[in-house]
Amino acid sequence: MSKKIIIVGGVAGGMSAATRLRRLMEDAQIIIFEKGPFVSFANCGLPYYLSGEISDRQSLLVQTPTSLQARFGLDVRPFHEVLAIHPESKTVTVKNDTQTFTESYDALILSPGAKPVVPPIPGLAAATNVYTLRNVPDVDQIMTALETTNPQQATIIGAGFIGLEMAENLRKKGLAVTIVEQAPQVLPALDEEMAAFVKQELQKNDVQVLTNNSVVGFKNAGQEIELADGTILQSDLTILAVGVKPDSTLAKNAGLELGRKGGILVDQHYQTSIPDIYAVGDAIVVKQQITNTDTLISLASPANRQGRQVADVIAGLPRKNRGSIGTAIVRVFDTVAASTGLSERSAQQAGLNVQVVHTTGKNHAGYYPGATDLTLKLIFDPQTGEIFGAQGVGADGVDKRIDVLATAIKGGLTIFDLPELELTYAPPFGVAKDPVNMIGYAAMNLAEGLSDNIQWYQLDDALEQGKILLDVRNPNELANSGQIKQAHNIPLDTLRCRLPELDPKQSYIVSCHSGLRSYIAERILKQAGFKVENLDGAFVLYQTIKPEEIEYV
Amino acid sequence: MSKKIIIVGGVAGGMSAATRLRRLMEDAQIIIFEKGPFVSFANCGLPYYLSGEISDRQSLLVQTPTSLQARFGLDVRPFHEVLAIHPESKTVTVKNDTQTFTESYDALILSPGAKPVVPPIPGLAAATNVYTLRNVPDVDQIMTALETTNPQQATIIGAGFIGLEMAENLRKKGLAVTIVEQAPQVLPALDEEMAAFVKQELQKNDVQVLTNNSVVGFKNAGQEIELADGTILQSDLTILAVGVKPDSTLAKNAGLELGRKGGILVDQHYQTSIPDIYAVGDAIVVKQQITNTDTLISLASPANRQGRQVADVIAGLPRKNRGSIGTAIVRVFDTVAASTGLSERSAQQAGLNVQVVHTTGKNHAGYYPGATDLTLKLIFDPQTGEIFGAQGVGADGVDKRIDVLATAIKGGLTIFDLPELELTYAPPFGVAKDPVNMIGYAAMNLAEGLSDNIQWYQLDDALEQGKILLDVRNPNELANSGQIKQAHNIPLDTLRCRLPELDPKQSYIVSCHSGLRSYIAERILKQAGFKVENLDGAFVLYQTIKPEEIEYV
Repeated sequence: MSKKIIIVGGVAGGMSAATRLRRLMEDAQIIIFEKGPFVSFANCGLPYYLSGEISDRQSLLVQTPTSLQARFGLDVRPFHEVLAIHPESKTVTVKNDTQTFTESYDALILSPGAKPVVPPIPGLAAATNVYTLRNVPDVDQIMTALETTNPQQATIIGAGFIGLEMAENLRKKGLAVTIVEQAPQVLPALDEEMAAFVKQELQKNDVQVLTNNSVVGFKNAGQEIELADGTILQSDLTILAVGVKPDSTLAKNAGLELGRKGGILVDQHYQTSIPDIYAVGDAIVVKQQITNTDTLISLASPANRQGRQVADVIAGLPRKNRGSIGTAIVRVFDTVAASTGLSERSAQQAGLNVQVVHTTGKNHAGYYPGATDLTLKLIFDPQTGEIFGAQGVGADGVDKRIDVLATAIKGGLTIFDLPELELTYAPPFGVAKDPVNMIGYAAMNLAEGLSDNIQWYQLDDALEQGKILLDVRNPNELANSGQIKQAHNIPLDTLRCRLPELDPKQSYIVSCHSGLRSYIAERILKQAGFKVENLDGAFVLYQTIKPEEIEYV
Repeated sequence: MSKKIIIVGGVAGGMSAATRLRRLMEDAQIIIFEKGPFVSFANCGLPYYLSGEISDRQSLLVQTPTSLQARFGLDVRPFHEVLAIHPESKTVTVKNDTQTFTESYDALILSPGAKPVVPPIPGLAAATNVYTLRNVPDVDQIMTALETTNPQQATIIGAGFIGLEMAENLRKKGLAVTIVEQAPQVLPALDEEMAAFVKQELQKNDVQVLTNNSVVGFKNAGQEIELADGTILQSDLTILAVGVKPDSTLAKNAGLELGRKGGILVDQHYQTSIPDIYAVGDAIVVKQQITNTDTLISLASPANRQGRQVADVIAGLPRKNRGSIGTAIVRVFDTVAASTGLSERSAQQAGLNVQVVHTTGKNHAGYYPGATDLTLKLIFDPQTGEIFGAQGVGADGVDKRIDVLATAIKGGLTIFDLPELELTYAPPFGVAKDPVNMIGYAAMNLAEGLSDNIQWYQLDDALEQGKILLDVRNPNELANSGQIKQAHNIPLDTLRCRLPELDPKQSYIVSCHSGLRSYIAERILKQAGFKVENLDGAFVLYQTIKPEEIEYV
């Protein structure tokens, strides 16, 4: 007898499961219940529709119930909310706009996703201009507000991926935009100094960024927003994007075991705590592969993979969830920021033996037109060389390098393997020593004791301890770009001659523009017997994260 | 006492060795003898200088002897040719424009590179307009010819990477360009059907491509070129780019052991057969990592790495040459082609258990503006899942996917790991199921017996055996794009209803546009009990490699 499979939720995970199930089980009965009006829509594209960068609303609606019926023989039912699961009878109670009914299943797949967190801020209920963004009806509402209320001033609460994409698209639409973020930085998934490049880009595009601040109240139907520091913001349109949480109420009420932050607990085969009920996507707890700890990941790629894999499991193929490392990217105006694996902060919190290194180079051959800066950060274990994570910021080529590093992590490659990677090189595409090779060399130099670095957040203390900062750039660079306060300038190419000026009893810190020359200076000084450290990331990084520490000479 | 190290050849490998040596051995005496006028020039950028895409000749000259002396204390001597090596006395004989002298060494590093192959074609010696391209003087000569002789018609002999880059740049300069290639295809490093996309792009840009043909003579001082098939080409400017070979005469005369095609034999520490003489770069024989066989690789990235590694070896650091897989890329007008590892052909020749799969998808989310087609090919072992190689062709995003696959090969990842890769995804950068994930799924479907494919070169025989080709595209696609001769059309969305039209005793082959729908059709048919195979690469691939087999209905 053919199997009857019910899927709750018709977006990434649910729809991947449904189509794969059909390809494996032609005679199965497959019903997808979707609470909202649409299935299989392009949720990652929603912000771009607001600015008009994606101009055709229809293009967001990748599939329809009719097309899915014709191609996959799927019974797709939008506007159907599953109200309850009855594991003992293997049935669900479903409500649509005309009736409530019961449907039986042989296997049930839950793919409810994650929903925006809505904090209990005073005045929020009375606010008429505050929106969250999860699906097409949400974006339609915001679009209607844009068209009917002609808002001038938008406020984005939360500077995560969605918040920043909304900030960019509303700014491009012509609104004045302010971002309010509780953390000391934008993009809390990245480390502070890497996120600082994004903050700079936001400010360059006239987006006001208020970090270390939060909303404590809405007034005047939401037209006024009161912040923790007492500031009152005028806001015509407010987007609440402070994070998401598993949409697991249905699962909880059915008695399924939940874990971290209300995520649904599943085994490696996506089986929940109750037989024949499976779950996938943003709502489930997964293993962070690097730390082997429980985590929640709200990303389209893992959800799609999990959907496909649960179909394999149900069809009897050998498949299991191996966990996730978490790879994400965001474009903010002309800057791209991406990360994979653990941040420095999360690696520290996990108690790992952490070292980091930053490099800045060009995305492709410098002599070929259009080369732009690319700053990478690698988080690794200097003893074993294990790579915990990587982050990248730049105008172009960031996605490629983070993809390569994400693949390296999945393949268990160490920092010692990165220089060995043979990456495509021709002048329009890369550099003979690709930025990934280079950061591997830089990490190896640290691991093998050829170089010692000091981080941007350690510089103040080091200078207070009496260490001397040597800037080895040329005088014209100092004049044009400024210099770190307290730095002494000895251009690299004169350093060998000027060694007698230095004090062998002193400790030195060297810096330059991007870190290439300071490393050469470090090697000269080390081999001459001086105590010396390299300011990791050099001037490029330091001026971005600590602009107030730069002076002009 | 400080060591004296002599380096022969001042480009990629030699200069990487020199600068790394200085960072490790501040007190070493390091002399670089370079036969030509320039060191450390951007040899990969030379073709782009001809068209003016790189407009500043100076930008090709990355470093000068003066800058290298100032920064690295290197004694760089251009116009110095090393005539002989005397291993017993550890000296070299060197000639410059005024004298011949002897210099001693503690360690000698040979980085002579590879030189263009010049076949003994009748009339070549008398030809005045035939050029090879290796270095700046070569490009200066060609530039002078362009400026003084005002050539209208250029001929490129050889359709490898350099030949194609020259074809593009001379075409952009306004010349009529003809390419002559002995092989049946352009880009012999790629497999024929992937190279066909590049051939198509060349033709689209009015470059005449003559494959399966070769030059048998030059006449009239090179103004006429006679081909093997009797054709006479008029040519005002001819580029000879039929390949390179190790520039190992000096090494041979010194008694160093040579290997494959005259390449210098070295051990894992770049030590030649004679103590204290090392060699790196295009001139050495390296291990192909996948087959563990001897090979020659003429690419900038491995040369740079080897130069750095030999410096480590000489300085006493633990380092060895782990071999290369070979990754290359070329841009030809608006098409990019890249490969890593073994081609299908070379994997077959190596006697491996080879299966291949092709996929075509978008470089980024289809609903986001500017998405373009990307065709990937994976060469793998269907039993073990080992990845032997990959190739990609498209307008954008090819470099990224080949870099990811090159990293996967280096990391020992199998086809079963590719769907697990967590790659950056946001609409401007990728697809939630990235093309790399997708080709992993496709390969798994083959390895796990869910799908059976047939290659473009097997279709003729299969149809002759009486198999029936089913095209599951929609009628309007057939009308607009044509169809493969002999195909029967049943649109996918009607296939389930029309199964009764099919003959259970027949064998079927399914095809569609890109291969996604034909796979769904294959699964429908397989599960209904039909014998069916999927035409790998589908119409996109077949029409490119076999345009003569397409008819319009």
